Amino acid sequence: MDDLYPRLSKDNAALLLVDHQTGLISGLVRDYGVDEFKNNVLALANTAKFFDLPVILTTSFENGPNGPLMQGLVELFPDAPKIARPGQINAWDNEDFVTAVKLTGKKQLIIAGVVTDVCVAFPALSALNAGYEVFVATDASGTFSKQVANAAIMRMAHSGVQLMNWFSIASELQRDWRNDIEGFGALLASQLPGYQNVMESYEGAQKDFNKQ
Amino acid sequence: MDDLYPRLSKDNAALLLVDHQTGLISGLVRDYGVDEFKNNVLALANTAKFFDLPVILTTSFENGPNGPLMQGLVELFPDAPKIARPGQINAWDNEDFVTAVKLTGKKQLIIAGVVTDVCVAFPALSALNAGYEVFVATDASGTFSKQVANAAIMRMAHSGVQLMNWFSIASELQRDWRNDIEGFGALLASQLPGYQNVMESYEGAQKDFNKQ
Amino acid sequence: MDDLYPRLSKDNAALLLVDHQTGLISGLVRDYGVDEFKNNVLALANTAKFFDLPVILTTSFENGPNGPLMQGLVELFPDAPKIARPGQINAWDNEDFVTAVKLTGKKQLIIAGVVTDVCVAFPALSALNAGYEVFVATDASGTFSKQVANAAIMRMAHSGVQLMNWFSIASELQRDWRNDIEGFGALLASQLPGYQNVMESYEGAQKDFNKQ
Amino acid sequence: MDDLYPRLSKDNAALLLVDHQTGLISGLVRDYGVDEFKNNVLALANTAKFFDLPVILTTSFENGPNGPLMQGLVELFPDAPKIARPGQINAWDNEDFVTAVKLTGKKQLIIAGVVTDVCVAFPALSALNAGYEVFVATDASGTFSKQVANAAIMRMAHSGVQLMNWFSIASELQRDWRNDIEGFGALLASQLPGYQNVMESYEGAQKDFNKQ
Amino acid sequence: MDDLYPRLSKDNAALLLVDHQTGLISGLVRDYGVDEFKNNVLALANTAKFFDLPVILTTSFENGPNGPLMQGLVELFPDAPKIARPGQINAWDNEDFVTAVKLTGKKQLIIAGVVTDVCVAFPALSALNAGYEVFVATDASGTFSKQVANAAIMRMAHSGVQLMNWFSIASELQRDWRNDIEGFGALLASQLPGYQNVMESYEGAQKDFNKQ
Amino acid sequence: MDDLYPRLSKDNAALLLVDHQTGLISGLVRDYGVDEFKNNVLALANTAKFFDLPVILTTSFENGPNGPLMQGLVELFPDAPKIARPGQINAWDNEDFVTAVKLTGKKQLIIAGVVTDVCVAFPALSALNAGYEVFVATDASGTFSKQVANAAIMRMAHSGVQLMNWFSIASELQRDWRNDIEGFGALLASQLPGYQNVMESYEGAQKDFNKQ
Amino acid sequence: MDDLYPRLSKDNAALLLVDHQTGLISGLVRDYGVDEFKNNVLALANTAKFFDLPVILTTSFENGPNGPLMQGLVELFPDAPKIARPGQINAWDNEDFVTAVKLTGKKQLIIAGVVTDVCVAFPALSALNAGYEVFVATDASGTFSKQVANAAIMRMAHSGVQLMNWFSIASELQRDWRNDIEGFGALLASQLPGYQNVMESYEGAQKDFNKQ
Amino acid sequence: MDDLYPRLSKDNAALLLVDHQTGLISGLVRDYGVDEFKNNVLALANTAKFFDLPVILTTSFENGPNGPLMQGLVELFPDAPKIARPGQINAWDNEDFVTAVKLTGKKQLIIAGVVTDVCVAFPALSALNAGYEVFVATDASGTFSKQVANAAIMRMAHSGVQLMNWFSIASELQRDWRNDIEGFGALLASQLPGYQNVMESYEGAQKDFNKQ
Repeated sequence: MDDLYPRLSKDNAALLLVDHQTGLISGLVRDYGVDEFKNNVLALANTAKFFDLPVILTTSFENGPNGPLMQGLVELFPDAPKIARPGQINAWDNEDFVTAVKLTGKKQLIIAGVVTDVCVAFPALSALNAGYEVFVATDASGTFSKQVANAAIMRMAHSGVQLMNWFSIASELQRDWRNDIEGFGALLASQLPGYQNVMESYEGAQKDFNKQ
Repeated sequence: MDDLYPRLSKDNAALLLVDHQTGLISGLVRDYGVDEFKNNVLALANTAKFFDLPVILTTSFENGPNGPLMQGLVELFPDAPKIARPGQINAWDNEDFVTAVKLTGKKQLIIAGVVTDVCVAFPALSALNAGYEVFVATDASGTFSKQVANAAIMRMAHSGVQLMNWFSIASELQRDWRNDIEGFGALLASQLPGYQNVMESYEGAQKDFNKQ
Repeated sequence: MDDLYPRLSKDNAALLLVDHQTGLISGLVRDYGVDEFKNNVLALANTAKFFDLPVILTTSFENGPNGPLMQGLVELFPDAPKIARPGQINAWDNEDFVTAVKLTGKKQLIIAGVVTDVCVAFPALSALNAGYEVFVATDASGTFSKQVANAAIMRMAHSGVQLMNWFSIASELQRDWRNDIEGFGALLASQLPGYQNVMESYEGAQKDFNKQ
Repeated sequence: MDDLYPRLSKDNAALLLVDHQTGLISGLVRDYGVDEFKNNVLALANTAKFFDLPVILTTSFENGPNGPLMQGLVELFPDAPKIARPGQINAWDNEDFVTAVKLTGKKQLIIAGVVTDVCVAFPALSALNAGYEVFVATDASGTFSKQVANAAIMRMAHSGVQLMNWFSIASELQRDWRNDIEGFGALLASQLPGYQNVMESYEGAQKDFNKQ
Repeated sequence: MDDLYPRLSKDNAALLLVDHQTGLISGLVRDYGVDEFKNNVLALANTAKFFDLPVILTTSFENGPNGPLMQGLVELFPDAPKIARPGQINAWDNEDFVTAVKLTGKKQLIIAGVVTDVCVAFPALSALNAGYEVFVATDASGTFSKQVANAAIMRMAHSGVQLMNWFSIASELQRDWRNDIEGFGALLASQLPGYQNVMESYEGAQKDFNKQ
Repeated sequence: MDDLYPRLSKDNAALLLVDHQTGLISGLVRDYGVDEFKNNVLALANTAKFFDLPVILTTSFENGPNGPLMQGLVELFPDAPKIARPGQINAWDNEDFVTAVKLTGKKQLIIAGVVTDVCVAFPALSALNAGYEVFVATDASGTFSKQVANAAIMRMAHSGVQLMNWFSIASELQRDWRNDIEGFGALLASQLPGYQNVMESYEGAQKDFNKQ
Repeated sequence: MDDLYPRLSKDNAALLLVDHQTGLISGLVRDYGVDEFKNNVLALANTAKFFDLPVILTTSFENGPNGPLMQGLVELFPDAPKIARPGQINAWDNEDFVTAVKLTGKKQLIIAGVVTDVCVAFPALSALNAGYEVFVATDASGTFSKQVANAAIMRMAHSGVQLMNWFSIASELQRDWRNDIEGFGALLASQLPGYQNVMESYEGAQKDFNKQ
Repeated sequence: MDDLYPRLSKDNAALLLVDHQTGLISGLVRDYGVDEFKNNVLALANTAKFFDLPVILTTSFENGPNGPLMQGLVELFPDAPKIARPGQINAWDNEDFVTAVKLTGKKQLIIAGVVTDVCVAFPALSALNAGYEVFVATDASGTFSKQVANAAIMRMAHSGVQLMNWFSIASELQRDWRNDIEGFGALLASQLPGYQNVMESYEGAQKDFNKQ
């Protein structure tokens, strides 16, 4: 009955970032605040970087109003395969994309994208059908409204998608702080302002008591 | 295991618009803003028009306080079957309606209506029982409150309804931009103000650089 | 596969109103506005009255801070069995209550109560286990917050409860307006201010045109 | 410096109800829930009735889509002057209305209406200019959104309107419970479900202890 | 004491639309929904058109990321002065703009723009200082969040700006339906979906009773 | 121009707690969460206790559904004057209350109560008229909804009330941590769970570094 | 079919409190108000104390920014096993923790923690896989936002976790008030301010009528 | 009448950052999201840096639970006066702080801090009394709740504070893009993710058309 807890592992997982393009984000994403959404997407990306996961980037009509991929993602993954889809809306309909996924050799797919109900839900369901374990990073995926997002994640959950968020993904990949305490701490500090505050408070306290 | 992703296809789908009547909308729909709801309903309708799906309109007591069908829908589908139900609340209890559905020859039914918990949920569940694949356009369906809407879509999801929204429906029917780039772009531009903005920005940029 | 749409029928249904006591409502219910909640509860009760459903009232420690049953319910159902539970929190643990349910001879139970996560969820799940079809009136049930309500209805849905609201219950029991157009219209007009407005507008229009 | 507290008095006040018409309410009012708004309007009206204030009703184009006055108001004030304005949007532009106000002989005007930013704000500001003390019942006045309502009440406050709500108006007119304890208690019980609950709890407790 | 009600008049008013550019709207406006904001802006513009008010358009760096003026505005006012500001952020710092305002000969300025706290607040306060009466259309002006919008309108109100919204502006300019019943009704029907619904219901009722 | 900053001083201030009765709180207060409101009221009361301010308690019809004063307040101020008003709604209409206020010899009055629009606003405005400086503790005052609260505090601000909250009142009375660092810290820790967390974190850090 | 209602029993249940550390709470928890969250956690803990359930405390890196366990929990359970995990993020990966769970001999695990999506979801799913019945106290578990919480509880529900809250847990463990009326009443009064109010009202009424 | 528009000028303005300490932020600030608040504070700080305004930092008990100043601010202003107040809560009560303000020679003070109702409101009102023009950056100031923030900014506005936000402050200081187009653009791009998106879209379009 092990399947009640499909569990991400850094050895088995790949990250698929689907259509985080500047035009789509500014034109369509309204279920997260602008600051929060940017931070979530970069946090997920940096998580993958930290764990050295294979990452696949894909875009839809990037030479057009949808716009280029967020510059932050481009800089983070200069060597990742970037599939510029000539027209397929569901990334899984693009053979190059599916091939790139297969080439990672991983069976656990972490997916985030814009918009949740299309660019995330469609390939997520396709990947489930193809036999992958699928983990959606809900908070690094955006769409028109909270109502649309809620319907989309409910749909995915009913098909078997594991609903996660960037922080739970990072935590599951890390498994144990001792695998790299400083590195993981630095990841959290840089991506999570709330955690950065408590870290700085702790360091401040350390200085106080060392003075004594 | 293909059924994890029941996938809309423009060859297999029909649209059922249930009771988008002016009295019901103004009297009962409070889970979407007035502008947003009108735009969502017309966007879904124009999507069906664009893909030439069979459309069936139905109303409940339109000669009375429930009011006539939104004029915008009437104008869009002058030749669609319009079943004015003499009393049945669940449209599926009306034989003419079921017959009209059968006559489309389609097995995938996209349903939207007012109110979600009755005019959508009842025929959606009936259609599931009758063996159809059912896709509800949640954001083109309205009801008393977000709480009522949430309970209704959760109920439907547990029975097997696929929760979608007009944009994901349009995207799934389109499958590939190359099937008609200009047409699909025009559909989005006219129905999606957020996308219209980024399209106009892109055209503006084009003019800027052509001037140079 | 008929069970995808467990369908309420006025011949098979009974209504169980659990602990709509004035102390519990004023002290604990915060997921609905005060006006809205009162109207929803009375609307559900009047629906049962209209369809002549068997109704069972039950209270928990009514001689104490929980307070008496809402006076409006007492007046509506002077002859209904009212089980004042001496201590059992889950009404289903009270033999008199279960006996009263059995005596109705109905297999479909509509349940509403205060608070949703206890007084509704516990007997709802017990009744499912006992083989009943259970329909919860989510909007005539109240609790501490929207978050608690959401968790409770999600729990119930996963066990098989049908999530409904008073209006969808009334609509399903009515099935067809022609069963009693005036009666059903009057029910809606008196319980649904939004519908009352459109009815009055329609009557106003009738006067206008009759004048002409 | 007495003018820091312009104080309503039942001997000096009149109530102006502006355009609470069924079409305007169902089509335009979205800053209050449907149940809450109806209850607030009727509570204000019953308050005026209880204190025997002069009441003036006025409507805009009631033979048309704006619809008739809410039936509840018509029934409550069969003998009140009802000025059906032939076209003036600001009721104060209608001579009959201003004359009716003058005939009350009162210098304190309580105003509520639909929509707040027009049908309330315009005559409220006109009345201020004409030298009246103006008290707006903000919660018996409705409009398109909370944002529009907020701007409108801020505008009125800056010109000198006293922002009140039906309950504070009732309380100020009553001044002292002893003026009519039972009558005022009955008014609150019938118009304020939250108060009704605590009254019923208290009566329940009374029965408990009398039994002992 | 007439100044408690600075009152818009179609003979004295001009409309200033400041920086409704597609890049600014999609990138920055988050205090209104996308559909609602577009509708509000076009409604205000059509109102000015209907009353034949002088309109002045102005943009900030339209050859750049801020993007062109919304196409809908361009089409509506092909002959209006359009001041493309070469750099001034406060439009009032641009001499051409101030000159254009003066040339209208009007002393009442209706202002809307993006973003509220800058492109609206700055010229609004400048215009007050220059002796104009200033009326801000709050709901046709957008910015980063409701919190920022609230602070900006509170600031403006304290300096003497009249806070209005497109509908109250249209109503005040119209003054009396009889000035053009059909024209004004058509304006509302086309710009106000909520009113469109009640109009269609009324027309539906008319057909019903004419049939009889 | 010193009056731009009417500044609370522990030597000049008294606290008036108006009608924090259990029936009124449970029946009427809906603009704050239940936990938050209780904590705010007790925090304000403990603040007055800490600074040894004169405190006056008053109730309206406490032998009736309004209920007794919150037990927590009774226990905190066993010796404070408690004016049980026989009927006056505005506490300032009660001579004993006004006398008690005068006897404190203070000219700065901190007021909180239930409900904000009546039990706070009325005496606050009366006190302003009587020449007192008035500081309302907005977050220890509750009412029907955020909309009603907003209108009430806007009304009071326009008459000259200083809008504060329990924490800003405590901070202003304290003026300087050095007046009693441990006492003030303990006050915050016990009344402010958010501050308690950072205090416990700091103490935890202290232990960590002392161990080293 | 008894498993539709997995039912907590005080004889079979243990409580696991995971990482309620002061740094994590102040830095990360934003889906509940500060007062509400503290009250919920302590209410759950006091519930376990009242029913004498085995309790296991665990922390993650408490000598660091995550901070110590909330002092309130430490004081409540001085003798409970407290597993300070040296690095494992999922508490179930820590052998001492799993051993402590086994040693309780209970098969029903109530879990709450910070953050919901990690410290609750991971061990909850692990425990399901290990054959335990799992009941999550959703309102005593906190995380970054309501959106993240919603996705996490939806994920858990789909795997079979029973979604509850501290009050429904207390009610289920109590089963019948008569098992200890005074004790259970005192628990509710001290942990539930809303219930405390109605209890004090009832006691006040008792005094009133005893006086007579 | 020039004072209707107190206008910030980079030659006359100084920035006062009051108590942006990590303990206070994580423990107390709940009216802005964590990401949004951090971004707003750093944006305001970078704005001051860009315009080379004098900046004064001050902290309250930084050797204690309040924690150190946000590290980001420390790094940005290594040479700014940093007044560690030994106890005064209102920074204006600290002579060193007031002296530092005077030494800037500026008469326009921009103030932001934590918490808004104390650390911002108190010195803001003191500065008004001392004859300064005061501009509060509302969105770089945080506090317990939106309700507390609203009351605090309403209080300040009534005393004459100009309510602004970091973006309107930056815009007013810049006055004209041509003063430094690239520098100002870079400031916006780095601090305003929404603007960054449209800038990247524009650059993407530029690349597209240059390819052609």
